[in-house]
Order: sequence, then structure tokens, then C-alpha cells
Amino acid sequence: MKLKSITFLIDCPDQRGLVSRISTFFYERGFNILHCQQYTDVKQNHYFMRLKLDMEALSTSRKQLEQQFAELARSLQISWSVHYSDDVQKMAILVTKASHCLYDLLLRWQEGELQCEIPVIISNHPDLEVVSEKFRIPFYCLPVTKETRPAQEKEILKILKQHHVDLVVLARYMQILSNSFVEEWKGKIINIHHAFLPAFQGAHPYLQAFERGVKMIGATAHYATPELDEGPIIEQDVERITHEDSVDDMIRIGKDVERVVLARAVKAHLEHRIILSGKRVIVFSTGV
Amino acid sequence: MKLKSITFLIDCPDQRGLVSRISTFFYERGFNILHCQQYTDVKQNHYFMRLKLDMEALSTSRKQLEQQFAELARSLQISWSVHYSDDVQKMAILVTKASHCLYDLLLRWQEGELQCEIPVIISNHPDLEVVSEKFRIPFYCLPVTKETRPAQEKEILKILKQHHVDLVVLARYMQILSNSFVEEWKGKIINIHHAFLPAFQGAHPYLQAFERGVKMIGATAHYATPELDEGPIIEQDVERITHEDSVDDMIRIGKDVERVVLARAVKAHLEHRIILSGKRVIVFSTGV
Amino acid sequence: MKLKSITFLIDCPDQRGLVSRISTFFYERGFNILHCQQYTDVKQNHYFMRLKLDMEALSTSRKQLEQQFAELARSLQISWSVHYSDDVQKMAILVTKASHCLYDLLLRWQEGELQCEIPVIISNHPDLEVVSEKFRIPFYCLPVTKETRPAQEKEILKILKQHHVDLVVLARYMQILSNSFVEEWKGKIINIHHAFLPAFQGAHPYLQAFERGVKMIGATAHYATPELDEGPIIEQDVERITHEDSVDDMIRIGKDVERVVLARAVKAHLEHRIILSGKRVIVFSTGV
Amino acid sequence: MKLKSITFLIDCPDQRGLVSRISTFFYERGFNILHCQQYTDVKQNHYFMRLKLDMEALSTSRKQLEQQFAELARSLQISWSVHYSDDVQKMAILVTKASHCLYDLLLRWQEGELQCEIPVIISNHPDLEVVSEKFRIPFYCLPVTKETRPAQEKEILKILKQHHVDLVVLARYMQILSNSFVEEWKGKIINIHHAFLPAFQGAHPYLQAFERGVKMIGATAHYATPELDEGPIIEQDVERITHEDSVDDMIRIGKDVERVVLARAVKAHLEHRIILSGKRVIVFSTGV
Repeated sequence: MKLKSITFLIDCPDQRGLVSRISTFFYERGFNILHCQQYTDVKQNHYFMRLKLDMEALSTSRKQLEQQFAELARSLQISWSVHYSDDVQKMAILVTKASHCLYDLLLRWQEGELQCEIPVIISNHPDLEVVSEKFRIPFYCLPVTKETRPAQEKEILKILKQHHVDLVVLARYMQILSNSFVEEWKGKIINIHHAFLPAFQGAHPYLQAFERGVKMIGATAHYATPELDEGPIIEQDVERITHEDSVDDMIRIGKDVERVVLARAVKAHLEHRIILSGKRVIVFSTGV
Repeated sequence: MKLKSITFLIDCPDQRGLVSRISTFFYERGFNILHCQQYTDVKQNHYFMRLKLDMEALSTSRKQLEQQFAELARSLQISWSVHYSDDVQKMAILVTKASHCLYDLLLRWQEGELQCEIPVIISNHPDLEVVSEKFRIPFYCLPVTKETRPAQEKEILKILKQHHVDLVVLARYMQILSNSFVEEWKGKIINIHHAFLPAFQGAHPYLQAFERGVKMIGATAHYATPELDEGPIIEQDVERITHEDSVDDMIRIGKDVERVVLARAVKAHLEHRIILSGKRVIVFSTGV
Repeated sequence: MKLKSITFLIDCPDQRGLVSRISTFFYERGFNILHCQQYTDVKQNHYFMRLKLDMEALSTSRKQLEQQFAELARSLQISWSVHYSDDVQKMAILVTKASHCLYDLLLRWQEGELQCEIPVIISNHPDLEVVSEKFRIPFYCLPVTKETRPAQEKEILKILKQHHVDLVVLARYMQILSNSFVEEWKGKIINIHHAFLPAFQGAHPYLQAFERGVKMIGATAHYATPELDEGPIIEQDVERITHEDSVDDMIRIGKDVERVVLARAVKAHLEHRIILSGKRVIVFSTGV
Repeated sequence: MKLKSITFLIDCPDQRGLVSRISTFFYERGFNILHCQQYTDVKQNHYFMRLKLDMEALSTSRKQLEQQFAELARSLQISWSVHYSDDVQKMAILVTKASHCLYDLLLRWQEGELQCEIPVIISNHPDLEVVSEKFRIPFYCLPVTKETRPAQEKEILKILKQHHVDLVVLARYMQILSNSFVEEWKGKIINIHHAFLPAFQGAHPYLQAFERGVKMIGATAHYATPELDEGPIIEQDVERITHEDSVDDMIRIGKDVERVVLARAVKAHLEHRIILSGKRVIVFSTGV
């Protein structure tokens, strides 16, 4: 059985004594630090920390712990969030017609690789309902046209709220979400783009890649932002190709890259290993 | 000792009987085929072949062989070139201040990995003369400003001609060659760009990469064309980085990628394994 | 729609005129060569060829074509096999409890990546019946102990015969097949081993890898032979790990490697791109 | 200009309050922590830490700092070492005839990638003296036979002592060092083995790899131990090959892997990023 744990994500201006003051705060409260990861952005003079504590030592209410930490945070100008491992996160998956990323997420979830609940799958097409049935997950089909987009998004937002969704994964959802949607869910929408960004933004990246004659194709998982394919990159990977590979080959090979890249990004998010830093992202390693 | 060999690079509209007619041409002349590689671009309906023959069976003059093949080529609309392994190619290296690609090419050449002569190293700065001295290769320092560019390029062209250069390698030569220079040397100038093209074209790609927060950095070797960083790609590779890597780390890590990518591209060119096809490039495998 | 095609796999002692004589044989019969790949093992002086023909030009019976080619083969000492794309191969999958490779094969098959039928899934445990149900494939549960092995294998062989199975894939089947079984199915059983062979043969390779402190873990797909984990290697890949990764992390990361390595090997086999050569394997590239 | 820094490498039984007590020790002495990296081996219940401090705040003698830290260390059962960035390490390189690793180390050293002095190159053959001359480094040629080994090693040890060598790099030194030599220099000899250990130990790994038909070849940098090729692994990498690659191709391709693997391992050692843990090695990331 896994230990219950508490994870703090912390960032603040770099200053002397941070490790000491933060770790002592938790030491004084009897906590055992399971994992402590740090990064200093020397250009920005900014400090980032991920602290994972054994929850067993928690002797106050969560609210009290947070209130006490908030005081320390104020004095050190810390931005922070706290996550309890027994607060199970809820992840919604948005798809269109391609099944490979959807299947991949569902299988990893089924195998316990992704610690979350998946209360809902939403699509603008009916094709993947059959997949959701195999895993007994509610499926909403919300077709969309240019005209109906505002209504359709409203409907999506309603469903997300209804199911208390924490994270939205665009697993090859081939629609562009409105700016207001994306901004409302800032840092909570992960998209997979089937190219090694910033190369080949927009539609048909494999065709672009074929025509440019690149020797490797890639995939990029990033947080969605109003600027299409410009969001902070969480994870990327590539696969080697040759002149023999047609666009269809690239699509097939690319699926394997998309799958693992998206899964790694989602896993990092669910494990609270990511801190946003402007257009960049700090991704702490898997660790404990 | 290596076999002497003759390599034909062939491309033509795809049509029935090509393999039979071409291979029979050489079989009738007593040649042993050491290696035969093919590729059909089904979209363009175009056929590409690399044929490597044991030179021992050559019983006519080279000119006669070429005249006879030219007849066959005409009847099949073949574009072709022929290369004899005892015609040693001459490669000029252009550099500025960074030494890593220059050293790498010289060491591989010294170890016999690159079958060529290196009659000359040309630079717009004096810094790397010391390297050329270590390998006893003539070094020309030709400084350049906007105003003197035409004269400097004229000088370069003169030197290339003087030394009967076949291939020009821009091993981190940080100057843009004029269109006329590039066009005169079409398909004979290999450049290394320190990014995974088409991402991060132009100057300071590692800084661009850092700011975009990519998770891998790469390098691209391509034939130079008048459009900067748009030439046909010969080889690419990448290396994984993390948020911890600064621009300086990326520059350091990138050097290792640049080195091997450039070396593989140059090796492929010298071994006559490349056929240009519009904006793409067919690169046959190493083979025999 | 895909072209119907005929694929010849050919190997013979290397000799002058092979390409010409073989390609001319097909040219004279009106065939268009879609793809022709070759390899010469210079140490063994042995020649390998894969020839893919457009089936449309077939103007005789298949038997006649084969009889005619057999004559040529005799004169050149050729070993060969021929495969018609409309002869759909039948692949049986053997599993135990781990589902990741099974799911992966089924999904690729469902998406059309693997051209075959899957008439049967066989397991020594009931756990994965639920997966076979999702894809509506017959599932046989054949438990086995040391004592019942001969009877169980007899049963497996009967089922394979009944379903006219061409290829057996051991998708994490955690039993050792008897020598007689393996020999009867020589070159027709593909196994996935969860390590980078020849490192970490036998049981618990990830534990071995952890204790040895390796920095990459891998997977190997190979044809089964009586010597455990010693069969000819078809495909391998690796993933980087660090000291932070526990055995459980390695198992999780390894799954992704196992999946793609097995899938690539199976795909190569089904596309008739593999020729056995002693303890080695020639795997021609994906091509057309 | 680089900051002067102090690096502590620490390991001890895991226990509550380690981060707090250690970081507070330095905070109280006015130190700014530049980088703090940790790892807990949960199986062994053992804790590892690398702490990099800005040296500017050092207000006592180094000896005093060490005495004070030794007290804390005693109370927490800490094993530790401390390294001052202005104590330049001295690295000896041992070679035989292959030049690629030697050149690579020298070039990286010349470019400032490896922070050390290289007082001496030692070889059992005269071939690479010409390389040492190019970089103006003293070269000792100490031929060796079975009979003269004890005397030759004695001579090597004398030279290492004379030059105050801290680290010995076996850059393709094709001799087996005696147990007593290796034990005297435990954790201070880095060897490069031209295979992906534990596969293909011993001589001619590329030939072994060819005959086994592996699809990737690799290299392994490890600390030397009396058991040949069994020492703790610091770094590994691989490169994909195909059936077309001969043993010679593998040797050529392997060189590129050996080069970077050895360089990364040496860099990690010189930057005090490695802590030995039985047969495993903790390698902290590059960081600041």
C-alpha cells in the first residue's frame, strides 16, 4: 500500500536560508520529508521547490497546516499550492476520432499508472463511444460547428463542473477551444500536438514534416493557452524516420510518440511535479 | 585493402523493368554488383537507385562505360552520375571561431572514416589557424564585412577552384553566403545548423530553445540553398534536456549533437549515398 | 485500397548476375517490382533479397509461377518463400497475466497496423479473458503445472492447428515451451523478453538491472529457440533511467519499451521483411 | 566568471529532520545554497545529498568548517566529503593505441568543459605520443608484458603520485590493472567499456555483438573494481544498428558512443556529482 503523502509546490524569489526555513517548518511539525526537489532559475533569480511529506505526522487539521504555512509563505513571498494524496483528482478526456491516445490513457489508468478518476469522456463525434463503453466511463457526444461553438463549450464547461473535474486532457481533440475557455482553465488543460514544437504548428504536421524532409518526427504535450500550439511545453519526444517513410508511415510511427509523450505529461501533472514559470515549465523527476 | 568500386546514382520516372534493364546492362559487361539500393517515391512516381559495382571487371575505358550507359539512360529518361572510388574527393572546410566541428571532421578524416582529401581550411577569423597547423592543412584567413563580402567570396571561390574542391563544408561558418555563391555550388555545400529545423531558424537557436522551453535540442545538416536554413535536410539528431539546463548547458550539449550530425551527413555525401529530390533528399544506408 | 502484392524472400550464395537474373525473370513475366531490397553478408558470401511485386500482372496460376521460379532457384541454389498479400495470416497470442502487450497488439490490429487475423488468445491464467471479450476473440484458458505441461502443450498445438495459425506471439507468456514445441514452430514464434539481451537473461530482469545499476533498460523481441532467451533477435529498444527509478518504476517504464519492440517485430514478420540467417536475422526496412 | 563554490557529498541512514538540520547548519554560518539535490534509497533506508554552497560566505578556515561539520556528521552518522572549486583536480589519462577517447577528453578539457588539469598521459605503446604533443602534455610510454606488469604498475603509481593525480581515466587502456592497484585507487579510476554492460563483457565486444545479432550497440563508463567489467556503472548510452552494419561499422559507430559516455562520466566525477552506494552509483544531474 502506498503511503499517504502531502505535496507542496513552492516558488519564490531566491534568497538565503530558504531550504533551512522551509524544511525546519516541517521538521518542527514532526514531518518526515519523503522527497525534496529544488531548482533555481539563476537568470530570473527565482526558486522552485517540490516537497513531499509523509502524511502520517499530520497532527493538526489540513486547514491549520495551510494557515501556518501561509504565514511563512507571506514572509518569504512564496507562491504555493498543497496537494493531499487522498484527494483523488478527476480527469476529463476530450477526443474526436483518433483512439490511440484515449486507449493509452485508459489502459494506464486501469493499470494504476495514473492516480485519478476519469468521470467523463467528451467528444464532438460519436466514434469513440464504443471505447468508453469498454471501460464503463460516461461518454458525452457534443457535435460542434462554427455557429454552435459557444453553446457547445458552455455545455462542456457545465459537464466539467458537474463532475468536479480538475484536469482536462485533449487527447487528439481536433477543435480549437475559445480563449475564454482556455483562460478559465489555465494550467489545467493538457494538449498533445503531433509535432516537435515549435516546428510544424497548426494542421497536418506530418504532411508538413514529409514535405520538409525532416529525419525525425516528434510530439509535444503542453498546457493549452489562447495562442494555439504556443503553450508551455511539458514533454516532448521524437522518433527517427527515413526517406522511405510516407506520410501514412509517419502518422503510424507518430502515434507511438504521441501516446507516451501525453502519458508522461499527464502523469507529471497528476503527481504534482510541475510548476509553471512564465512560458516555461519546471518538471521535477519522478522520484518517490 | 578496400575494393575499388564504381557507384552509379540514378533517378528516373518509375516504369516497369527498371531493375532488370539496369542490372542486366552491368551483368552483360561482367560487373559484380556489390550493393544495390532502391527507393520509389510513389507520390511522384519517381525511382531512385544507388548501384555499387566492383571496379575490377571494368574492361573498357571509363569514358566508354559512361557513353554506353548514357544510351540506356536516354531510353529510360534517367538522370545519373557516376563515381570512381579512386577519384579522391577534395573537401574544403569553412569555419569561424568554434572548433568542435572542425576538430571532429579532421579527426574522423585522420582515422580514415571520411574518404577524402582536405586541401584547405578557410575562415573569416584567425582563431582556428592553430588547429589547422596541428593537422598540417593550409589555412586561409579571409576577414569579411558587409562591404567586402563580394571580394571575400570571390577570393574563396578562387581558392576552391585552385584546390579542385568538390565539397564545401560549413562547419559553423557564421557568415551567410551570397545567393550566387550558393547556386554555383548547388548540392555541394553542406551546412550544420544548431537546431532541429525547421524549429529555431536563424541566429541564437539555443537561446530561442531555452525561451520556448523545449525538452530536446537538436542539430540539422543540410545542403545550403539561397533560402537560409531551408535547404534539403540530410541528417538530424536530438538530445534530451531538462529545465535545469541553461543556455550554456544547451550550447555544450548541442556541440555533441552538431558534431555527429555533420559528420554523418558529410560521410553520406562522400560515399555517394545521397540523391537530391526537390526539397527532400534520399539518403541510402551505409551498406557495403 | 492497398495493391495486392506478391513478396518473395530469397537467399543464396552470392554470385555474379543475381539481380539481373532474378529481376529479369519477373520482368519477362510482366511484373512491376514495387520494392526490391538486398543485403550481402560478405563474411558468409551469402546474398539476401526481398522482392515485392504488383500482383496485378499475375497471368498464370500461383502454382505455375512458383514452379517456374523453383527452376531458376535450383540453378542459383536459392532458398526462397513466396507470400501473397491476400493470404491473410493468422496470429495466435499467448499470454499469462500482464495485459500491456496483449492490448497493444489488439489495438494495432484493430487500427489496421497489423495485417492478420487473430483467431485465438491462449493463456495459462483466466485473468485476461476480459480483454479478449472486449475485442471478441476466442479465449482458451489452459492452466499448467510441471506435471501437466506435456498435456497442456498438446492442447495448445491442437488449437493452433485447428485455427490454422501461422504465427505464435508470446506476449509476456511466462511459461517455457518445450524444445519439441519450439522446434516444430521454428521461426514462427516471436517472444518478448523484458531486457536488453544478452544482458539479464532469465527471470526478473528488472531486478537484475536495478541491482547492476544500469542506466538504461530495454526489451528484446526474438524468435523462440530451445535455448531460452538465445533466439535470433528481431528488434530491441531501450529507455534511459536514473538512480531514482525503483524496480517498480523500471517495470512501468519497461512496459512502454516492450510494447513497441514486440509490435515492430510482429509487424516485420507479418510483412515478410525478415529472413533468418543462422543466429542472426535480416530485417528489411518498412518500405512500400 | 564562475562563482567559487563548496560542494558537500553526504550520505547517511535516513532519519527525520535531515534536510532541516543540515541546511540549518549552513544557514547559520551565512551560506547561500546554490544547489541542493537529494535521493533516498527506500530499500536501504539510506539518504544521499549533494549540497553546493557559494564559497563567498566562508568566514572561517576550511579546516574549521570541516571540524564543525564533522561534529554534526557524527551525530547523524553521516559519511561525507567536501570539495572546494578552487582546488583544481588532476586527471591522468591512460591509453593504448585508440585515439578517439583521448582526443575527446583533451578537446573538452581545452574548451573548458572539464574542470581539471591533465598533468600526464601514460600509455603502454608509443603511438599516441603525437597526440599528447599537440596538447603539450607530458607523455610516458611504459610498455608492459605479463612478466613486467608489477614493475610497470609500480612505475605508473609513482608517476601518479609525483603528479598528485586525483582521478585516473582509462581511455581505452587495453591492459587489466592488478587488484592491488585498483583497490588502492578505489572510486578514482573510471574505465570505458565498449559494450552495454553487463552484455558483452571481456574482449571483442563488437564481434560478440555482431554474432549475437543485437540491434543496438552501447558503451559503459564505470569505476574500476577488481572484478573486470563489474564496477559500478556511471553512464551508458547506445546507438541503433542494423543487419547491414559489419563489425567494422560497429567499431566506428561505437566510437561516438564511447566518447560521449566517457566524457559524461568524467564530467560527473569532476563536478562531484557522484556518490558510491555499494554496486550502484548515485549520479546527480548537471544542475548549477
